[in-house]
Amino acid sequence: MARTVGVIGGGQLARMMIPAAVNLGIDIRVLAENEGMAAGLAAVQIGDYRDRDVVLAFADTVDVITFDHEHVPQEILRELVQRGVAVHPGPDALLYAQDKLLMRERLTELGLPVPDWARVENTDQLAAFLAEHGGRAVLKTARGGYDGKGVRMITHEHEADDWFAALAEDANDGALLVEELVDFRRELAQLVARRPSGETRAWPVVETVQRDGVCAEVISPAPQAPGRLIEVAAEIGMAVANGLGVTGVLAVELFETTDERVLINELAMRPHNSGHWSMEGSTTSQFEQHLRAVLDLPLGATESREPWSVMVNILGGPATGSLDDRYEAAFAAHPGVKMHNYGKDPRPGRKVGHVTASGHDLDEVAYQARATAALFQD
Amino acid sequence: MARTVGVIGGGQLARMMIPAAVNLGIDIRVLAENEGMAAGLAAVQIGDYRDRDVVLAFADTVDVITFDHEHVPQEILRELVQRGVAVHPGPDALLYAQDKLLMRERLTELGLPVPDWARVENTDQLAAFLAEHGGRAVLKTARGGYDGKGVRMITHEHEADDWFAALAEDANDGALLVEELVDFRRELAQLVARRPSGETRAWPVVETVQRDGVCAEVISPAPQAPGRLIEVAAEIGMAVANGLGVTGVLAVELFETTDERVLINELAMRPHNSGHWSMEGSTTSQFEQHLRAVLDLPLGATESREPWSVMVNILGGPATGSLDDRYEAAFAAHPGVKMHNYGKDPRPGRKVGHVTASGHDLDEVAYQARATAALFQD
Repeated sequence: MARTVGVIGGGQLARMMIPAAVNLGIDIRVLAENEGMAAGLAAVQIGDYRDRDVVLAFADTVDVITFDHEHVPQEILRELVQRGVAVHPGPDALLYAQDKLLMRERLTELGLPVPDWARVENTDQLAAFLAEHGGRAVLKTARGGYDGKGVRMITHEHEADDWFAALAEDANDGALLVEELVDFRRELAQLVARRPSGETRAWPVVETVQRDGVCAEVISPAPQAPGRLIEVAAEIGMAVANGLGVTGVLAVELFETTDERVLINELAMRPHNSGHWSMEGSTTSQFEQHLRAVLDLPLGATESREPWSVMVNILGGPATGSLDDRYEAAFAAHPGVKMHNYGKDPRPGRKVGHVTASGHDLDEVAYQARATAALFQD
Repeated sequence: MARTVGVIGGGQLARMMIPAAVNLGIDIRVLAENEGMAAGLAAVQIGDYRDRDVVLAFADTVDVITFDHEHVPQEILRELVQRGVAVHPGPDALLYAQDKLLMRERLTELGLPVPDWARVENTDQLAAFLAEHGGRAVLKTARGGYDGKGVRMITHEHEADDWFAALAEDANDGALLVEELVDFRRELAQLVARRPSGETRAWPVVETVQRDGVCAEVISPAPQAPGRLIEVAAEIGMAVANGLGVTGVLAVELFETTDERVLINELAMRPHNSGHWSMEGSTTSQFEQHLRAVLDLPLGATESREPWSVMVNILGGPATGSLDDRYEAAFAAHPGVKMHNYGKDPRPGRKVGHVTASGHDLDEVAYQARATAALFQD
């Protein structure tokens, strides 16, 4: 009989699990924060993921709990596990996606390559780190950051006064994470999946292009990547998944430095924007793989169906009207490009959809994807 | 704002429209005959498609009506059109999918290649046709046949006595369709799509393998097909779509004769089993294309993503238990094969799912698909 996967969070990641679930005959139930979220086509329950009773009642209706985001509080996750609910990824792994300081500590313990970093509790410690790193650094809040939020480039220790003040009010033994400003050639992302019984699979490492701290474009595989880089990135992805005990899909955001090192930037323990290309471009999409993994089923092959895929996010959407007002023009001009509309209202900067093109000629593929996305934004 | 497509019929074809609808941000509503049909993940209303009031009320909730099957009565379809409802394919086209005698007459008028055929109202007419065609023929009821039902190979005119008796009781000016028994090398299928404003696109012609009158396997493209055959098949598909005014996806089942002619066997005016491979194997799946077409949006590209795709139906399913009891074994042995589970209870001969493999080596692709399907049947 069909198994039921419960997804906490009703955004586009939950939504894009639906096609894979339909194919595999898996039922999806979504716990969304409010009406009209992106996952509107599944069985949706509205409720607050920070409310213990809401989450426990939701868990009773499903066979396994997984996530559209990493924000469910640890104490609720641990109570689910104590009650025998299958939670993937589990709280021990998710902790490292929720707290960047813990993540840096653990990756360092595992001997994995990370930028120079320090835990800083006050201005003096921050000043010392800046002095040792050429007077510039990246400062991050340990919790709550995504898409560029909670991240700040600084050149002076007093640029963190407001964050230290907020930490002091928290009285929560707080600290900030400070990191060297990495001199990178480009950003990469390594996507892997791991099932509870241990099997892992990696997709080819991709290049990600960020604009204003938000992912704008992904090229799969990363162009001009020597075989060594592809292997190193996959090994890092596997090592993080195994080392942190991640179950489901894991995205490891990487810097490729100008001196040819690969350093771990951020982690996401769920399907990730850097893997959307896999819906068309890979034998197994990250959403199908995530469902397989959280149900502890054998993972699917991760070969690319076509030599190149380029995914471009639609950020904001049209100034007036809706995305589908542009279908006639976009589809007529770009019949080979695949559209993904998240069903959200357009709003400046918001990820409202993406497009993916695939083929043999990277220049043509990139042109097709970029030109199509441009028709949905103005 | 999102448009709503209403699908009459809740089988696996409606179900497989859901992933495409999620991607395009289209809402799907399904009118299903009963609970627990395959399309259970969409917004489903239960009702009888032969009940005028049910269908008219359903039509009020959607922007366009399309179909999972061709059985909605003409008078209901025509009332919908009179009320200004967009119906695709429309009743004038669907008539030819509902009535095989009318189909043969119209295709003959259009000069399209069909087997020798005749309308027979009695045993004498049938005997005359048999005498002219070497004493053997294929006899078909004009209406109500599918998957081998309503089709009979005969060698004597009295093998049709029960059907003639039933027609006499009907008092409906009835007749049977008799056709030459075509000496064919193999069966092919040509899938095309046409939007109301006239644009058409064809996928490559495929080879279909039938067992006991039911589609068992599809190979895309048809192996060892010379360029001329591919062109001829596509031209036939386009000519039927344009000639009959089909909107949406049209499947033209073809015979490739031993003397290298291509003859039209049957038509289906909806996504079709012969096009399931396109979900992974083509840039645009038949389900996405059908949604584009019935919404009169520009059609998507129909290039193959990989050189070969083989689809094998899962007929009946396991003797005990459910399809997903076999996932562990099937997915572990065949990580590159894609599963489609229709969410139906196993029953002998029933189409409960299909698998598709794609790749560069046809022998390997066919082995993978067949071996995977075998693990779901016993």
